[in-house]
Amino acid sequence: MIDLFGTPSLIGALAALTVGAVIALRRRHVNGRTLEQAAAAAGGNGRIVPDAPVPIPDSDAESLDVWGFRDTRFEVNERGHVELVGARYELSGQELPSLVPWVLDVMGAPLKRDETNRPAYPPEVPAPRSNAAFDDELRGSFKPDQLSTDAALRLRHGHGHTQEEMWAIKHGSIDRVPDLVVYPEDEEQVVRLVAAAARHAVCLIPYGGGTNVTEALRCPKDEQRTIVSVDMTRMNRVLWIDPVNRQAFVQAGAPGRLIMEQLEQHGFTMGHEPDSVEFSTLGGWVATNASGMKKNRYGNIEDIVLDVHLVTPAGKLERATAFPRESVGADPRLAVLGSEGNIGIITGAVVKLFPLPEVQRYGSVVFPSFEEGVAFLYDLMHSGRPPASVRLVDNLQFQFSMALKPGSTGLHQLKSRAQKWFVTRIKGFDPQKMVACTLVFEGDRSEVREQEERVYRVARAHNGMKAGAENGRRGYQLTFSIAYIRDFIMNHYLIGESFETSVPWSHVLTLCENVKRRVLDECAQRNLPGKPFISCRVTQLYETGVCVYFYFGYYYKGVDNPSEIYAEMENAARDEILRSGGSLSHHHGIGKLRESFLPRVMSEASLEMNRRTKRAFDPDNIFGVRNQGIGS
Amino acid sequence: MIDLFGTPSLIGALAALTVGAVIALRRRHVNGRTLEQAAAAAGGNGRIVPDAPVPIPDSDAESLDVWGFRDTRFEVNERGHVELVGARYELSGQELPSLVPWVLDVMGAPLKRDETNRPAYPPEVPAPRSNAAFDDELRGSFKPDQLSTDAALRLRHGHGHTQEEMWAIKHGSIDRVPDLVVYPEDEEQVVRLVAAAARHAVCLIPYGGGTNVTEALRCPKDEQRTIVSVDMTRMNRVLWIDPVNRQAFVQAGAPGRLIMEQLEQHGFTMGHEPDSVEFSTLGGWVATNASGMKKNRYGNIEDIVLDVHLVTPAGKLERATAFPRESVGADPRLAVLGSEGNIGIITGAVVKLFPLPEVQRYGSVVFPSFEEGVAFLYDLMHSGRPPASVRLVDNLQFQFSMALKPGSTGLHQLKSRAQKWFVTRIKGFDPQKMVACTLVFEGDRSEVREQEERVYRVARAHNGMKAGAENGRRGYQLTFSIAYIRDFIMNHYLIGESFETSVPWSHVLTLCENVKRRVLDECAQRNLPGKPFISCRVTQLYETGVCVYFYFGYYYKGVDNPSEIYAEMENAARDEILRSGGSLSHHHGIGKLRESFLPRVMSEASLEMNRRTKRAFDPDNIFGVRNQGIGS
Repeated sequence: MIDLFGTPSLIGALAALTVGAVIALRRRHVNGRTLEQAAAAAGGNGRIVPDAPVPIPDSDAESLDVWGFRDTRFEVNERGHVELVGARYELSGQELPSLVPWVLDVMGAPLKRDETNRPAYPPEVPAPRSNAAFDDELRGSFKPDQLSTDAALRLRHGHGHTQEEMWAIKHGSIDRVPDLVVYPEDEEQVVRLVAAAARHAVCLIPYGGGTNVTEALRCPKDEQRTIVSVDMTRMNRVLWIDPVNRQAFVQAGAPGRLIMEQLEQHGFTMGHEPDSVEFSTLGGWVATNASGMKKNRYGNIEDIVLDVHLVTPAGKLERATAFPRESVGADPRLAVLGSEGNIGIITGAVVKLFPLPEVQRYGSVVFPSFEEGVAFLYDLMHSGRPPASVRLVDNLQFQFSMALKPGSTGLHQLKSRAQKWFVTRIKGFDPQKMVACTLVFEGDRSEVREQEERVYRVARAHNGMKAGAENGRRGYQLTFSIAYIRDFIMNHYLIGESFETSVPWSHVLTLCENVKRRVLDECAQRNLPGKPFISCRVTQLYETGVCVYFYFGYYYKGVDNPSEIYAEMENAARDEILRSGGSLSHHHGIGKLRESFLPRVMSEASLEMNRRTKRAFDPDNIFGVRNQGIGS
Repeated sequence: MIDLFGTPSLIGALAALTVGAVIALRRRHVNGRTLEQAAAAAGGNGRIVPDAPVPIPDSDAESLDVWGFRDTRFEVNERGHVELVGARYELSGQELPSLVPWVLDVMGAPLKRDETNRPAYPPEVPAPRSNAAFDDELRGSFKPDQLSTDAALRLRHGHGHTQEEMWAIKHGSIDRVPDLVVYPEDEEQVVRLVAAAARHAVCLIPYGGGTNVTEALRCPKDEQRTIVSVDMTRMNRVLWIDPVNRQAFVQAGAPGRLIMEQLEQHGFTMGHEPDSVEFSTLGGWVATNASGMKKNRYGNIEDIVLDVHLVTPAGKLERATAFPRESVGADPRLAVLGSEGNIGIITGAVVKLFPLPEVQRYGSVVFPSFEEGVAFLYDLMHSGRPPASVRLVDNLQFQFSMALKPGSTGLHQLKSRAQKWFVTRIKGFDPQKMVACTLVFEGDRSEVREQEERVYRVARAHNGMKAGAENGRRGYQLTFSIAYIRDFIMNHYLIGESFETSVPWSHVLTLCENVKRRVLDECAQRNLPGKPFISCRVTQLYETGVCVYFYFGYYYKGVDNPSEIYAEMENAARDEILRSGGSLSHHHGIGKLRESFLPRVMSEASLEMNRRTKRAFDPDNIFGVRNQGIGS
């Protein structure tokens, strides 16, 4: 096996070394002691109380109308190249000279600076419906700055990040949004809020990062009660760390990046890194039953969360201690995972901690075809513990990631061209068929070494060719900046979104083929302009199958109702997913977007049980967000 | 580090090799193919339909009055030595010459052949209360041999294996037992049974292996309805195996040993091996939220079970497919785990499969003290993936296992004496303080090698001394034969039982000390004869803590109400466990034995949620077994 794209730069290597040294230092500080020493050092109950996180600076303010931080966006610059504005990400400030021609070639869509569909954001926001008695009661318990009826804020709290919702706020309208946004600062305030809502027949909708892609925050149009969005983001602290027992209590409103920061200062991670980790919150992860990219090492959210605090109209679910493992009847915690705001407000959770890994390394491998890539994943998964993250992108996404290469890397480009020659001529890889797998290894030195050896050995058996750490690293870095592209292209007459499923191994290939064919057929039937983009990647491995992500977009210039057509097509894709043996959702949840498909995947008795459980927790439907069709 | 007890015998080594070869052969047969080949070989849907298990032969009949197979029991033989009668286990047919003197020394109890408390089994069994209309309906759907009112069978179906229950059937009485035992043979019959019970107001209690130790099968004394025990053991098949996606559908009544047999024929295991694996059933494991000794490698039951079929009065919970992982709302499956018969009848489950391990090896290490042993476990758990099973027994149990050595191993004894000298003189281990850790390694060759190296490296850092594979193997083999000892010693005026908890790492040592001290204090207050036996072992490791088992027994000759006193003392121990930071149960469940402690570990809202969930599934309390105080 040869190293296709060379080793990372010296600077990269030095940076990695420094991070490694810091991590090692932290680990020694925390872990190099006996149990007793560490417990004693952490005080009487063995717990460390971390400092409150630094208040989020203005420079980290989030956009209300598009994804992400305000300082970052894609645009077509004056030279006609796509550029990521800002300085936050590795890609920031760089021109991507290959992107415009590639998009024109693949989708038939010109990305031109002066040819845009300008958003009409903000739409008109309905006036708030207030509940005077409730408001009076609130004013006794909350400071004025904890209550807001600001129209832009109310609008933002009434949607997530589905394509349909983002289209609506830019080019359409939203009929119903929360009437009031409340920002509780502790659990006690949440309890008072829920009690007040119950007394005054107010509808509550918990709000975390607002990043869902299932219309989970969409307010029911016909809700006559006052709707209050309970914004949990001021409850963003790690309240304690128990270094000996590897646990922490984290408030539900903490976004992933703040949790990581707070824990890293003490040498730990909870290991949960969904692609939205910058903005999505612990409470949202629990409510959605989320999955992180490094779940092979740290587990999914249900593996990480040891206990949940949930405030419901029927009282507070909580435990005095989170035990390692129990058998004490059906754990009410389990009703909370995946509850999507239907039964109460998650105020915090006890989570597992892992020491920061001694080593973090990236890797990548290219394969001649998607089939070979999937066969590699299968054998890798069953050869022992796979690396923390393993992703396989299909040929179109492989091409896309090449098209995202910054223009300043002239030297690399040359090298890449020579390598391309090697790959295509010597190895016989077809550039229109080859695929790439990116890898993150985390662990101690020997563990990572063993995994690397095994990965590349299994890859070789499937005609895989090592493609270097730098390409792997780049793939993961792109995750965060690429999230900004949806809003950018929407302005350039391209509408698109991703959706996921989980599927048993035996059905992976047919499912991917069927969904792609179905989407292309549906597009053809509708005579859409340009050429549709439909691509997939495998993002999670299990003994029994995988998670597959699809990316679908099309050029909508001249199309009357692009968002509706997109939704029709996503539904067709979902129908095809279910027919092909895939699940309704791997980790995004149901919300309202996928509600109509539920009867196809659950028995009527199962659905009825969920409805009855809801009534048990919340007989008056205070939590009236109506996700999964529950509470309707 | 030196090998303390030498290597296993040549015969043992040869046996291990043969098993290894067979396993390797099976693995090649199943796994040496591509996905497509394996799926094609398994038929259209990729599934293998295994043969029905061979009907259980008469020679494998189980006792009704004591634990286990009828062919096996301990007795004091004519030479005054304890002997395990029968030929089933490694220990079978062997004299244990050290045991009688050791028990006399440690507990002050003479084990004499002619000095026994003879059981008065069977007690009088209440006459069945029949429900004529229900019986009529049943006769239409069930064959005569599927219905029994036999008194001994009804008695057996009305209890599990708590000390109190076993005492009651031998020396007391049971007020209420099932009125009828029904043996369904397929899911359809279960559905009809539940419908008939609902129509005729009959109470149903599901029955699996009858091995619970929580009074989970005890019938409520004041239940006026006809009580039907639904014995699931005729539903004991593996209905299909999906070798590619590593799943199987197993009927709920299959006991562990039959599941293992059926899966092993196709090169697989589900990896769940509780100590009761010979008799306990899949349905029981799910209902109890069970844990297997090899959970480090295969997970606990919640990790292994992908889907559950549950027949409730409100309909059938079932899924068309078990997906690798989902986010589709609160999974109703989760209400089933730990439900202890309260909400319906589990008829089967889709479980994960693992290929039989390439290598299985045992190991053992001795440490100078329990403290050192626990510190070793902590560092081992956090050094990487621990071996499939790791157990640490305290000094008393270490002594006990030495006392269980058969007398025929004269050569070993001599060797052992020399080694004892070495350990105590050279290494300075105190025979009254040293403890032992036994290990099972499973995996492929390199994985096992890595784990062995790591285990012994970490052990060395805690003054551990390698004690050989044979001692490890023996420790695990003893698990199954030792289960017979409770009934044996009860006849010799010794009453005892085990109970478990889970506890965070920081509290392991204090909890163990506190519980031992408390039990000794309680015994002293009661002026019991002899000397109480209280001992513990750590049986499961987690990142956040461990599972600890306690073993408690005392000499009851001359004591009026030994069973009640035992129960008082176990309750005192449980109180001390909770005070010391332990959980109410790690994997045995609540049943009725631990019900009164529930309010100390769950918030009132949590308990109320469980009661409401029960009503949602079963509003008329058809499943009226009333475990966890639910349905009362």
